[in-house]
Amino acid sequence: MTPINPDSIHQGDRLALSRALTAIENNEPAGNEIQTALFPHTGKAHLVGVTGASGTGKSTLVNQLAKLLRRSKVNERAPKIAIIAVDPTSSFTGGALLGDRIRMQDLAGDKGIFIRSMASRGALGGLAHKTAAFATVLDGAGFDLILIETVGAGQAEVDIAQLAHTVIVVEAPGMGDDIQAIKAGILEIADILVVNKADRPGAQNTALALKAMLAMFHGGDLPTVGKHMRRATHDEPKTVQKSEKEAWRPPVQLVTATEGKGVDELIGEIYQHRRFLMDTGIWQDKEAHRLRREIEALIKDSLVDQWRQNIDKSKFEKVLKEVIERKYAPIEAVKLLL
Amino acid sequence: MTPINPDSIHQGDRLALSRALTAIENNEPAGNEIQTALFPHTGKAHLVGVTGASGTGKSTLVNQLAKLLRRSKVNERAPKIAIIAVDPTSSFTGGALLGDRIRMQDLAGDKGIFIRSMASRGALGGLAHKTAAFATVLDGAGFDLILIETVGAGQAEVDIAQLAHTVIVVEAPGMGDDIQAIKAGILEIADILVVNKADRPGAQNTALALKAMLAMFHGGDLPTVGKHMRRATHDEPKTVQKSEKEAWRPPVQLVTATEGKGVDELIGEIYQHRRFLMDTGIWQDKEAHRLRREIEALIKDSLVDQWRQNIDKSKFEKVLKEVIERKYAPIEAVKLLL
Repeated sequence: MTPINPDSIHQGDRLALSRALTAIENNEPAGNEIQTALFPHTGKAHLVGVTGASGTGKSTLVNQLAKLLRRSKVNERAPKIAIIAVDPTSSFTGGALLGDRIRMQDLAGDKGIFIRSMASRGALGGLAHKTAAFATVLDGAGFDLILIETVGAGQAEVDIAQLAHTVIVVEAPGMGDDIQAIKAGILEIADILVVNKADRPGAQNTALALKAMLAMFHGGDLPTVGKHMRRATHDEPKTVQKSEKEAWRPPVQLVTATEGKGVDELIGEIYQHRRFLMDTGIWQDKEAHRLRREIEALIKDSLVDQWRQNIDKSKFEKVLKEVIERKYAPIEAVKLLL
Repeated sequence: MTPINPDSIHQGDRLALSRALTAIENNEPAGNEIQTALFPHTGKAHLVGVTGASGTGKSTLVNQLAKLLRRSKVNERAPKIAIIAVDPTSSFTGGALLGDRIRMQDLAGDKGIFIRSMASRGALGGLAHKTAAFATVLDGAGFDLILIETVGAGQAEVDIAQLAHTVIVVEAPGMGDDIQAIKAGILEIADILVVNKADRPGAQNTALALKAMLAMFHGGDLPTVGKHMRRATHDEPKTVQKSEKEAWRPPVQLVTATEGKGVDELIGEIYQHRRFLMDTGIWQDKEAHRLRREIEALIKDSLVDQWRQNIDKSKFEKVLKEVIERKYAPIEAVKLLL
């Protein structure tokens, strides 16, 4: 195998890009090397998380978004779009693989769209880390918008909220017991709420319920500061008008993704949110937080690796055995081992 | 506040038990002390995870299980049951709080049942760790079965599979697009599959679909070894009959939890699975794995704590600033910092 050339990734070589992502997926050292080499080119892409339960039509929405985003303009040209599909619903009735093939066909031929799915199976635990690494490489490869599609629940929600600039939460009418399927947690992470399948009965009710929940969450009618608590900084852009800009109220957008209805409005909201982040300086804050977390996580890994290399394995096994025998508790064992 | 006495927890003092769990929830040092003190009494409880999407009726099922388990016999007496409700669906239409109150009323008066819910909000990330700590304390408090209810998705599924001896995955007919809601991942972690709301149309179909998926997953009709790959050990119990015991095939149980239908059969399957784990030595294997992971996680935390105490904060901020400016990549930053 020839080594992967980061320059060719940056210049748009698809094969090199795919190989780099595979290297990351397989924990190969080349994955780290590529990220390091591409890092100077990163920090430009707009990371958009799209999350929601299975059955809400996330994938269709993401496809439509990609298609219609290509007709929009960023810096006077059509933006290059990448899709990372994390944890594709791999049901036996036609999940990941079939879905991917349909997607490929639908979006094929457009060189400005790149799709990559990441199986959650086997990557468990390291999934957030790998998604971030994918985003770094795609950012360095020059994609303007990176759509990250995840099944929204638990830790995945938290991970996507920490990674993405903009989080879109997708709901659909008639999911489970309707509102019961909507957890309070999503209101915390959603920058934009989408009610997909808006042609179905109950869509308006779902939208109304979401708006009511948002009003409760954000504390009534007052325009309060949500998740993006704006911090006073010295380098605050002059363009900011405090009264208008300091709070973001997540809009609730009705969409029928299969017909493309409401998708243009959604794109408008995505760009509006991006402008909000830029104008308030939250974009930069998020970036700093993300890199801080990344460095801290890497330090953690390094410390554990170092420890693993130096540990006396027989001592560890002896201590473990004594813990199993209840001679002492795990916390006491750690004191013996460190 | 008087200190919490571990002995009184072991002797059944509910107030002391509740205070210990609160200490764990709040990351107070007392939480660790109690776990250490109770540790010699642990290793007896059967940890049963109950997981599934919201709307499947998990809570009702867990309540019924607790009630009817109390009528069963373990070691010639009614087992003491604890319920840990992790991440209760806190929708505004009557979630966690109301649900908890109804539960309390339903199961109140029975001193052999203890219920505690754990808000996932705020505990994010440390949730798995806290659930394990709760289980340790409840185990040390003498509960025979600990039912751990979680919203099943992503990392939560993995966590519960690593903690519990027996994992029950709950489905319901008509959830989302039926089978689309069933992810391949759950087949890996399920020891028992429940189709709840079996009185609803489509329940039989859901059960059949699950059975078909199980057959595919476990490789056709042959009784193959699933998740519990039996390992050859020297201390294999003499009672094991290889041909019968080496594989566990997850049963699919139809249940109508609201009416208690099918719950006794489910209890039979829980006890059967426990016997299987004991007879094959998998119970002990799981225990060893769990404690190994716990010690490793604690070591990780200690290493990071040590590093945090010794780090030169201004150096860290300087390096972070240079990473933000793209002077070097996070991986290179770590080399400078360690």
